[in-house]
Amino acid sequence: MSIELLQQHHCFAGEQRFYRHDAQSVQCDMKFGVYLPEKALQGQSCATLFYLAGLTCTEETFAIKAHAQRLANEMGFILITPDTSPRGADVMDDAHWDLGQGAGFYLNATQPLWSKHYQMQDYIVDELYALVIEHFAVDPDRVGIMGHSMGGHGALSLAFKFPEKFKSVSAFAPISAPSICPWGEKAFHHYLGADQHAWFAHDSAQLIVKNGKHFSDILVDQGLDDQFYEQLHPEKLQQACDQVGQALTLRFHDGFDHGYYFIQSFIDDHLRHHAKQLQ
Amino acid sequence: MSIELLQQHHCFAGEQRFYRHDAQSVQCDMKFGVYLPEKALQGQSCATLFYLAGLTCTEETFAIKAHAQRLANEMGFILITPDTSPRGADVMDDAHWDLGQGAGFYLNATQPLWSKHYQMQDYIVDELYALVIEHFAVDPDRVGIMGHSMGGHGALSLAFKFPEKFKSVSAFAPISAPSICPWGEKAFHHYLGADQHAWFAHDSAQLIVKNGKHFSDILVDQGLDDQFYEQLHPEKLQQACDQVGQALTLRFHDGFDHGYYFIQSFIDDHLRHHAKQLQ
Repeated sequence: MSIELLQQHHCFAGEQRFYRHDAQSVQCDMKFGVYLPEKALQGQSCATLFYLAGLTCTEETFAIKAHAQRLANEMGFILITPDTSPRGADVMDDAHWDLGQGAGFYLNATQPLWSKHYQMQDYIVDELYALVIEHFAVDPDRVGIMGHSMGGHGALSLAFKFPEKFKSVSAFAPISAPSICPWGEKAFHHYLGADQHAWFAHDSAQLIVKNGKHFSDILVDQGLDDQFYEQLHPEKLQQACDQVGQALTLRFHDGFDHGYYFIQSFIDDHLRHHAKQLQ
Repeated sequence: MSIELLQQHHCFAGEQRFYRHDAQSVQCDMKFGVYLPEKALQGQSCATLFYLAGLTCTEETFAIKAHAQRLANEMGFILITPDTSPRGADVMDDAHWDLGQGAGFYLNATQPLWSKHYQMQDYIVDELYALVIEHFAVDPDRVGIMGHSMGGHGALSLAFKFPEKFKSVSAFAPISAPSICPWGEKAFHHYLGADQHAWFAHDSAQLIVKNGKHFSDILVDQGLDDQFYEQLHPEKLQQACDQVGQALTLRFHDGFDHGYYFIQSFIDDHLRHHAKQLQ
């Protein structure tokens, strides 16, 4: 699988790069970011974190706004930042920002209008996963996943679907129970159809109850001034974890909102969480 | 002088805010950012840094991309980020990005087309300076200035014009000799007229020779893969400092370019430089 280098920036002792490739799973060109710490540039095998971004974001959002590179270089983490959906003029879209391009929800759509391109689960878990192992010094035994908001849903749901691929997981303000919040209901209805039983296979709270404990700990940070709090249902995540004995470090933070000023404040803790889990 | 709060985000133990105010000096509404560390929120007097951004940037660029808040909170720095020019439908502009709105060059324009609004020197040094002392826990005896590219020119030139207001200075990839580079020649011609002698009063290399040593050290970082290197003339800055015995720590960095992935890599060193100078 070939990839085309679009941008390359020295950043600390490593490099922040962006690539484009012809993605088979989603039948369109896709871009992704990769931060390579000094250790990876020297060819040493590195623990690797996928970061899944939220609604309206792109492969560049985390690299610009989350301030993770300093510690990632220090700790020797490769950071992979996919885009949030398939994109392009011939890719189905919606006039609203919470559906279609920029809002792929990291699942495989089954409905006719969406199923051709919106196969984001296959894209992340199979195609991009294999591609970064092929092209970079990724240690395939030390891969974790994290995400924010819609991407927090993506990180949690993919981790519990594929614990053999993602050995650690964390999230910022994740959509923990998409089946019962307005963003999730809208997206799932369009991508998966009207039968709500089909939705549960992509709902983290439901998946955890069904699949059981898989991680020695999960880290989730949640701001208490989050303007989208009613979409997120952290209590459902807590209940699901309690039900199956899955350890969850769920931290609530006074005054913090939903944005990247919140994420930058706690990103170092997430890198340390993954380092511990991936030891 | 009243200010209107536009955005307020918890960020580490401090707050990243953005304000709007009716600016007399530039006769238009202006926005600026301020990062208040925990210490400032508790009302303790804080060392304060102005950061002047480069062409096309706004008051938000540094706050989003430079990753300074973590250490600023730890060290107790207030960070002030002005916009890069006057703005608005009735403010003179140019079709190109290197003149007019987003390209104010931090000087007072004298030419009829520009002089009504483009009084950025007065705006920064008098109006905004007084305003932040009035509204925030700024220690007026510990104010420094830094900047990037056009804002590096701004920081260096304003520091050598007003060393009683700015007690420390540093820059990333500054336009050190605007009188002899294409960006500077174009802007100075429009803002200051055809007489090049009028330009020297706003040219850092010239100002340093004229005004002499004012700081115990200056820190300047410069990437060696900077795509705008020919605009910057770091050698003129070095020559001017050598000529008057002004200490200059000018560091060249292999592989780094002109952007914020470069700035985030060295911003911590700049905060430490200012802390030392402002002791």
